[in-house]
Amino acid sequence: MKFVIYTAWACIHKYWRVIIRNVDFRNITIVGVGLIGGSLALALKKSGYKGKITGVGRNRNNLVKAKERGIIDEFSTVHARGVQDADLVVIAASVGQFESIAKKIKSGLKQGAIVTDVGSVKSAVIKNVEPFMPEGVFFVASHPIAGKESSGIDGADGDLFNNARCIVTPGPRTDRKALNKIKSLWKAVGMKVVNMSPEEHDLVFATVSHMPHVVAYALVNSIIDADKKLLRFGGGGLRDFTRIALSPEQLWSDVCSQNGDDILKTLNRFHASLSKMIKLFEKSDWKGLEGEFRKAREARTLIE
Amino acid sequence: MKFVIYTAWACIHKYWRVIIRNVDFRNITIVGVGLIGGSLALALKKSGYKGKITGVGRNRNNLVKAKERGIIDEFSTVHARGVQDADLVVIAASVGQFESIAKKIKSGLKQGAIVTDVGSVKSAVIKNVEPFMPEGVFFVASHPIAGKESSGIDGADGDLFNNARCIVTPGPRTDRKALNKIKSLWKAVGMKVVNMSPEEHDLVFATVSHMPHVVAYALVNSIIDADKKLLRFGGGGLRDFTRIALSPEQLWSDVCSQNGDDILKTLNRFHASLSKMIKLFEKSDWKGLEGEFRKAREARTLIE
Repeated sequence: MKFVIYTAWACIHKYWRVIIRNVDFRNITIVGVGLIGGSLALALKKSGYKGKITGVGRNRNNLVKAKERGIIDEFSTVHARGVQDADLVVIAASVGQFESIAKKIKSGLKQGAIVTDVGSVKSAVIKNVEPFMPEGVFFVASHPIAGKESSGIDGADGDLFNNARCIVTPGPRTDRKALNKIKSLWKAVGMKVVNMSPEEHDLVFATVSHMPHVVAYALVNSIIDADKKLLRFGGGGLRDFTRIALSPEQLWSDVCSQNGDDILKTLNRFHASLSKMIKLFEKSDWKGLEGEFRKAREARTLIE
Repeated sequence: MKFVIYTAWACIHKYWRVIIRNVDFRNITIVGVGLIGGSLALALKKSGYKGKITGVGRNRNNLVKAKERGIIDEFSTVHARGVQDADLVVIAASVGQFESIAKKIKSGLKQGAIVTDVGSVKSAVIKNVEPFMPEGVFFVASHPIAGKESSGIDGADGDLFNNARCIVTPGPRTDRKALNKIKSLWKAVGMKVVNMSPEEHDLVFATVSHMPHVVAYALVNSIIDADKKLLRFGGGGLRDFTRIALSPEQLWSDVCSQNGDDILKTLNRFHASLSKMIKLFEKSDWKGLEGEFRKAREARTLIE
């Protein structure tokens, strides 16, 4: 009797695990095997994924390295060939390359394949990728919020997505079954998945990510315009504050070009906040300044 | 023979250590036993300092805690009494309190005592403290560049100063012997000591520390003015970028009030950098933007 109960429990347990962590794709192709693409491959393997992972990219040496390290199982430098077996294609490149990647992969995509991405801009990405998807191929836009200081395959890390948020941005043309499969993919690598409209996503991330990057670059430039040597006196504060100004410039100018209106809106908002501070300095209103600082400090504690 | 050589070597070695790490003060009083004051006490004990360390402050519970933890040896809540034995007094409070502390300690200071501070503003501090120093007491302004996220005695850390920079800002009235003793003090706790004029110091730190704090507070406020809930979507970038906006507001409004002109100058410089970025967005000049980003990224690598 005990054995029967145990067996039944074990079956339910196993079935439950399959339901909640199922990665329902036999073959996965990742286009762009860098920090995010490489980390996704590692995280999938860590989650127990047994299918084939193919890497696609322009840099053969990078793909060879990824294969040697067991991050990917196969690779191709020809996009259409690299995606031909794929049940899932993940575009893990800089958003500026998405349209050209969509054009390169479209002839190779098989019927029923699902395509997703990891871009930090969504409206423009959907506009640049969706029109090139053949009939019977489903595109679901997603944005896993993950990153770290190091970039490229050398920084790939199977725990990168653990406990982080992933935004999926279904639109009117998004297939619901495909959407659910993509949500399961990100959950399988440990992410908390949130739905947003592409427009909402773009304004939120203009505010909390894109604009702060622009501000950090502007801050570093204002210091070096005064005197480059000053930077070496920056203590821990400046080091943390300007870390995001180490991000690759092309990646970020691509993001800016694709989400320019929203970023400009949030930059103008920041400009207003800054002007308010400057006015308080001009009036030597130190109590007013302290009030502004307090408001910010109290709110800052909301960031986990 | 071997013994004689060993003894001679041991003597030279010991003498050498005394020369390079000599803390030449029998009794030290620290006014303000918080993160910096507490860490200095711990670092001194760690460096082998055998004299007496007295803590002075308004909060008796804090001083009791510091004594129980072995951070200080004695304490007093009466400033003039707490400094009466001191060969060295270190003012480790917020710069806004310096003038009132100088007034409170002056009657207790003994002949030949040296007074220093840890404030991140120097011209105003010298103006607020020096006039209250009795004849035969020497004031040397210093600024150890150290800090961490936690504040107060609970964050005290004997390694806080290790390998960090300390700026000393001697002026025309600074006693050279006292200056050298203060330099030895900071070297004894592991710091690299740099000389600057008070004016140079204040402009440098307005640029690399004070202004970035104001910018971080303004950035957080511009986000919460849009929608407070957005902050929770900030990934690692925003978290790092706005960490300095967790700093206590009064401490920073005091710094701003005491270094207002220099901070305003650097804020206007930053404002110009930001306006340049905004113009590039308005013109959709993405190549120009990429150039600005590149310039910043390349310079950012200069921060150790």
